[in-house]
Amino acid sequence: MPELRKNPITLNWVIISTERSKRPSDFIKSQDHKEKVSRSESCPFCYGNEDKTPPEVLVYREENSPPNSKGWSVRVVPNKFPALSQSESSPERNHTPLFETLSGYGVHEVIVESPDHSATLGEYSQEQTDKVMSALLERYRDIRKDSQIRYIQIFKNSRAVAGASLSHPHFQLIAMPLIPSIVDKELLQGRNYYVEHNSCIFCSIIEEEIKTGTRIIAENNRFIAFCPHASRFPFETWFFPKEHRPNFDSMDEEDVSDLSTILRSVIGKFEENLNSPPYNLILHTAPLDLEGKEYYHWHLELLPRLTIVAGFEWGTNFYINPTPPESAAQFLRASSLL
Amino acid sequence: MPELRKNPITLNWVIISTERSKRPSDFIKSQDHKEKVSRSESCPFCYGNEDKTPPEVLVYREENSPPNSKGWSVRVVPNKFPALSQSESSPERNHTPLFETLSGYGVHEVIVESPDHSATLGEYSQEQTDKVMSALLERYRDIRKDSQIRYIQIFKNSRAVAGASLSHPHFQLIAMPLIPSIVDKELLQGRNYYVEHNSCIFCSIIEEEIKTGTRIIAENNRFIAFCPHASRFPFETWFFPKEHRPNFDSMDEEDVSDLSTILRSVIGKFEENLNSPPYNLILHTAPLDLEGKEYYHWHLELLPRLTIVAGFEWGTNFYINPTPPESAAQFLRASSLL
Repeated sequence: MPELRKNPITLNWVIISTERSKRPSDFIKSQDHKEKVSRSESCPFCYGNEDKTPPEVLVYREENSPPNSKGWSVRVVPNKFPALSQSESSPERNHTPLFETLSGYGVHEVIVESPDHSATLGEYSQEQTDKVMSALLERYRDIRKDSQIRYIQIFKNSRAVAGASLSHPHFQLIAMPLIPSIVDKELLQGRNYYVEHNSCIFCSIIEEEIKTGTRIIAENNRFIAFCPHASRFPFETWFFPKEHRPNFDSMDEEDVSDLSTILRSVIGKFEENLNSPPYNLILHTAPLDLEGKEYYHWHLELLPRLTIVAGFEWGTNFYINPTPPESAAQFLRASSLL
Repeated sequence: MPELRKNPITLNWVIISTERSKRPSDFIKSQDHKEKVSRSESCPFCYGNEDKTPPEVLVYREENSPPNSKGWSVRVVPNKFPALSQSESSPERNHTPLFETLSGYGVHEVIVESPDHSATLGEYSQEQTDKVMSALLERYRDIRKDSQIRYIQIFKNSRAVAGASLSHPHFQLIAMPLIPSIVDKELLQGRNYYVEHNSCIFCSIIEEEIKTGTRIIAENNRFIAFCPHASRFPFETWFFPKEHRPNFDSMDEEDVSDLSTILRSVIGKFEENLNSPPYNLILHTAPLDLEGKEYYHWHLELLPRLTIVAGFEWGTNFYINPTPPESAAQFLRASSLL
């Protein structure tokens, strides 16, 4: 019998499908891997092609190397084809009873993670991953000074199937004049739970996951990674700071180091044992103009794209997941033994 | 400058992206079309392979042809790998403060649209399309008698990219013991609008679309097809009965005929002028146990899968659409001239 499970934060249900069940090993199939190259002539994110992007807005580079030339280790540039832009002075609203529009005010940047064209988050050194996280934090802290911006969304699309139009490893940052409806829903339900239980719902989930243990993949001093009870996707993984922290940009150096460690370890397991699946990695954090201190808890969601989202999901917002999160977590925990 | 538009029913925003804009003709690229065949030896939905599926639960077939043999024109069978099943007597609920589960009670059926392995909704005769719609209605009316079922979801995945695991044309029906959260959200906002305006929000949108005219693709006596103001996807199309109708199964014979006509016409345009794009076609109708008479309005949503849903969309529920719906509708209206 299949089982329906409810996400306690979004209130959406998933079907853990026994009839369609897939064991973790069913996903380990050969994929179209491109040959690894450290540099591609035509890639705008590779050394020597710095003039193919808009000028850098943040860079970590060798001393005395000139701006917008090679010698950098992490480089942040405005997106050449931005989804939102600051070119007008402020967001302008138009309103009829039915149709509301807003000018597309915002920021869209690209965080190039490494000069190496084919490197991955699972392969970087600890130092390189720390630098990537620090660059994300620096840009977040700078952009939040713009009072028109209400939310800063950070995400990574890995491989074409997951929406990466350039294969060179990069994060993206989109700062917007609105609160994403997903975050709004998390805040609403977080608030409801807080009123009833006097506790952050995310803290309660972490506590429950530690007690249960079966869905945990990895844990260190500051961070924990687990497959959520109502996983929408096979191997869906959430990364949480173990202490209550509403805002991403509250991280100190030790947080950055522990986050880098757990990301490298878990994504390394994905790459090694699930044949580098396409994935989206998404930051969820408190909106800039809402306190949310008591009832929000920032985290990262890793969504492997091993299944196809189809009519059922589009029409319901429910998901059919053929791999129970307990099996997925067990496989990933044990995977260093494979 | 890009423009943000708000969906008045789901309250989600889309970015109509001018920097990333694509003209309709940008989508007309050659795709991997498989050769058309009227029958495939290995396909469980083809003539002569009726024993490869569970026995038919509804069929339109030649007089005197035996059940579960060839001679049918539309055939409905239980899904061999059902996402939900009626094998237990009723849905069973388990509840901790955080984790709620429900046994996967429900129905999952496949409506095989035609014996022709490679036929499409845009190519069928009027009579064949009428039969497909009638079969959907018959199954809907039969399954709703089960008092454990709260919602009947009907959808079609066309082509592998849109989630079709078998290419033989078919609809699917999933009956579930829950109301999909998307429909719940539509009901909530429909109710809010009704309280304020004393009118169905969907009726108001149809009226506004007829007045504006720029997003309409096709219209006949009973139905209208248009690209919604806040389209998430290039060429997203909604089909509505023009009169106020909450429930899909309120359709009479003339409704069926007019729905078939507009579906054949619009999907035919997609197939001919956008090179048969992958798509999902999804029924939205009132839940079985809620009246919703005043403020819900059943409809079909056609979601072409020409763009990739990536980290931004997964993390926000906002969408980046590179093709304004006005351009998409204009292209499709004019497309018989191409």
